[in-house]
Amino acid sequence: MIRYYNLNGKLTEVARASLQVSDLAILRGFGIFDYFLVKKHQPLFLADYLDRFYNSAEKLGLSVPVERSEMTRLIRELIAANGLEDAGIRLVMTGGYAADSYTPVAPNLIIMQHEFKAPPAWQYDQGIRLMAYDHQRELPEIKSINYLTGIRLQPTLKAQQADYLLYHDQGVIRESDRSNFFGLTDDGILVTPDDKILRGITRKQILQLAADIVPVEEREMGMDEIPRLKEAFLTSSTKGVMPVVQIDDQPIGDGRPGDLTYKLGELFQELVGAYRMV
Amino acid sequence: MIRYYNLNGKLTEVARASLQVSDLAILRGFGIFDYFLVKKHQPLFLADYLDRFYNSAEKLGLSVPVERSEMTRLIRELIAANGLEDAGIRLVMTGGYAADSYTPVAPNLIIMQHEFKAPPAWQYDQGIRLMAYDHQRELPEIKSINYLTGIRLQPTLKAQQADYLLYHDQGVIRESDRSNFFGLTDDGILVTPDDKILRGITRKQILQLAADIVPVEEREMGMDEIPRLKEAFLTSSTKGVMPVVQIDDQPIGDGRPGDLTYKLGELFQELVGAYRMV
Repeated sequence: MIRYYNLNGKLTEVARASLQVSDLAILRGFGIFDYFLVKKHQPLFLADYLDRFYNSAEKLGLSVPVERSEMTRLIRELIAANGLEDAGIRLVMTGGYAADSYTPVAPNLIIMQHEFKAPPAWQYDQGIRLMAYDHQRELPEIKSINYLTGIRLQPTLKAQQADYLLYHDQGVIRESDRSNFFGLTDDGILVTPDDKILRGITRKQILQLAADIVPVEEREMGMDEIPRLKEAFLTSSTKGVMPVVQIDDQPIGDGRPGDLTYKLGELFQELVGAYRMV
Repeated sequence: MIRYYNLNGKLTEVARASLQVSDLAILRGFGIFDYFLVKKHQPLFLADYLDRFYNSAEKLGLSVPVERSEMTRLIRELIAANGLEDAGIRLVMTGGYAADSYTPVAPNLIIMQHEFKAPPAWQYDQGIRLMAYDHQRELPEIKSINYLTGIRLQPTLKAQQADYLLYHDQGVIRESDRSNFFGLTDDGILVTPDDKILRGITRKQILQLAADIVPVEEREMGMDEIPRLKEAFLTSSTKGVMPVVQIDDQPIGDGRPGDLTYKLGELFQELVGAYRMV
């Protein structure tokens, strides 16, 4: 059971952690967040996530009210207070209580802890299906809280019997709604889009792990390359390495999770298992 | 002084009107809103605003928890409770408290009242300046709470000594960040964009008022038409008819508010002054 969040620097019981309705997240969807896993009380790859969080804030013109060392202390305090070995941590920062309903003021900073439910095992065993959708995320390099399109399309996804979205910008592949996309080409090169995407922390780890075993390219990928892919997968902090076996009506390779996908998933789990915060 | 908001059907003191941090507006910027003025205790053009609000909800897959007649009653109750003759009313509805941080559940509905501060008189006397920006708003026909780009660019606007944004989609004019755009061409036609914009209620009224005095076209407008405009203005519930005298470095007409702009502003104020809710 999660008993506490941290609201503006103070441990706060979950039911009491609330924001007044004049907050700019509520009025204007204006805020950033980040999310990472905790394993054996260790926040995974914390330095990378904090880099991104502080960077998102700066790019939106917001100033995080605590330094990184204090943020780390607050995160550790929350992990200790809730007492869960494994969990997810969500950092959220909003534009604050705006008198004019538009101009950011002192941000509200919330550190939440969630019980972590991994995706169902069948998704790793059988692989998942993507629905392609022409959409360029707004300010993609910033981990903003804007998920209008992703959430709005969830019923459509279900109706199409697909699991996640694959955004493309007029035929140029970008990313899934909460994950990065990788494809293994028929000539054996692992490719992932590099432009107008969120640079995932898991994506970064996978690029490093893959570099030892396969040629890797970060470059523009066209939707027209999909029929020629041998394997494909998504990466994210919650999914790790998630095999993709179909995009719209197009099966990937032989329609089953591929060997490279499986190998990278294994290497990533080993990395996570061996992780110790420095 | 505004003492009350209405939170999920109940009059609630402003300082106590808050949402738990698991609300989807805070976690995912997922919500809609609308805003209209109250004059002499009368909500202006309420039927139009409620049409749009319920339509925005439907398009995002959200269900407003009260019928229109009950919504109208709650709005009137709030206006009576706060006792202000003139004000602004903001309706906000979010995706609710999502257990999985992603899937909308029972929405939270907030009715807020704000003291209405009209734009400064000099803006109407001298006209305002726009900064053009290449941006297509996401789900433009829905009045969602997503104002990431508009808010992020406020410091840039100030640095450029401009007052508002003019969004264009690769050279095709759309709208300002919180207003619709109109231009009077050199051959005397009043033009306003018709595609991928929010259909403003003030825009609708101006189209009706203008139809009696000038040829009107709702059509695609190119940025390349700006040098040939004789007049330009923005419309919104807070601005009414706001003259535009410059876009980037390009003066509009002779660089002063135009006669048609002035006339339409006057007609709109007369309409507002004579408004009685039916």
